[in-house]
Amino acid sequence: MPNPTSGIETLPAGVVRADEMPPEELERMCRERLAPTYPHDAVYGDYCFLADHVAAPYERVFDYCADVRALAEWTLNIRRLEPVGAGLYRGAMVFSPEDAARPATDIYIRADAWKGPEHGLVCYPCSWDEPGELWMRYYFLLADATRTLGAPGTVVMWTNCRHRYYDRGAHPVPAFVEAGRARTDRFWAGDGWPLFAALHRIELDNLKRVVEARWGGAGR
Amino acid sequence: MPNPTSGIETLPAGVVRADEMPPEELERMCRERLAPTYPHDAVYGDYCFLADHVAAPYERVFDYCADVRALAEWTLNIRRLEPVGAGLYRGAMVFSPEDAARPATDIYIRADAWKGPEHGLVCYPCSWDEPGELWMRYYFLLADATRTLGAPGTVVMWTNCRHRYYDRGAHPVPAFVEAGRARTDRFWAGDGWPLFAALHRIELDNLKRVVEARWGGAGR
Repeated sequence: MPNPTSGIETLPAGVVRADEMPPEELERMCRERLAPTYPHDAVYGDYCFLADHVAAPYERVFDYCADVRALAEWTLNIRRLEPVGAGLYRGAMVFSPEDAARPATDIYIRADAWKGPEHGLVCYPCSWDEPGELWMRYYFLLADATRTLGAPGTVVMWTNCRHRYYDRGAHPVPAFVEAGRARTDRFWAGDGWPLFAALHRIELDNLKRVVEARWGGAGR
Repeated sequence: MPNPTSGIETLPAGVVRADEMPPEELERMCRERLAPTYPHDAVYGDYCFLADHVAAPYERVFDYCADVRALAEWTLNIRRLEPVGAGLYRGAMVFSPEDAARPATDIYIRADAWKGPEHGLVCYPCSWDEPGELWMRYYFLLADATRTLGAPGTVVMWTNCRHRYYDRGAHPVPAFVEAGRARTDRFWAGDGWPLFAALHRIELDNLKRVVEARWGGAGR
């Protein structure tokens, strides 16, 4: 597929390569793309990425994340997970102590895990209200920090992508999304997107606390 | 491993859960963690994450990224990749047109790929100068945007982690790192870390250009 011996002639216009430009031009391009500070939306607008080192072994942290039931421990809101078949679980979204008695939002979720020897991936496809289309996807890239940072423990890299269903302005959308957005007894999942960086930071701190309490000792 | 029916009694102190706190307290915690702007180092200090949507099918984009030879096309600096056995390649780091004639830095690199039907992972373990410890790790999480964003194409999520060898102040380090840092005819890999967000943004734009030119049509 790539044609590494052909040089640039098969590449489209606009590809930037250091061997084909004055170094000052590359420096100028870098300066254009860097700033002392970045607005919230530039960092968290379309993708919400968080990462941290946790002082517990990769094997343990991966297996914990690959078990969907663990979400009922370290997330802010997911509770009451019960299997409904084929690896899928139904749970309740709980937003407050009052809510805990009678939650009004189901969540369907499963964990798709691929575990390699030095790093692996856990994706949680999920959806509020209905299980037909698991459109919310939480990606967890987990890596043995011994390799990745030169220190014991595990690196957790967490990314959410802003699916169009999050936005109230997206049309057309399936009926269950339309219905979910129209409800007035609760907010819509996407209304919380501007808070995801904070909410997920709290959750990642939770995850770190739990795995370090149970399997800690691999300090950094 | 998790004990989802036990409630909080098996969780360590400090775990934050929405069903066990006043909503105002959670709001306060969110406000503490959000800001209108974030300093460069808060965003790119320890982990350098970049993401984009590319308008080309997941199958094609994944296979292209999984072929290590493609790096000689879309990266700024990696050139002259030749196989040295066991999936490993030796290439040259080229930083300028003058440098192209006689590059002074070898890079050893391979692509470790796991491809799932809806998302997959490509890790490029690599190292300047010597192949013994491939300590630089470039993680590419690739996802079918149909699922992830509700639009055709592919999401590319790229993360670098700041391994301690990047830092000149880290001791002890292996002899080849000590030697690499001591060279005066070139900079050290880690000296470029503050520029990674810009350099990798240029490279991700390159990747997007190449795959869209070759396999585009899945527009967003």
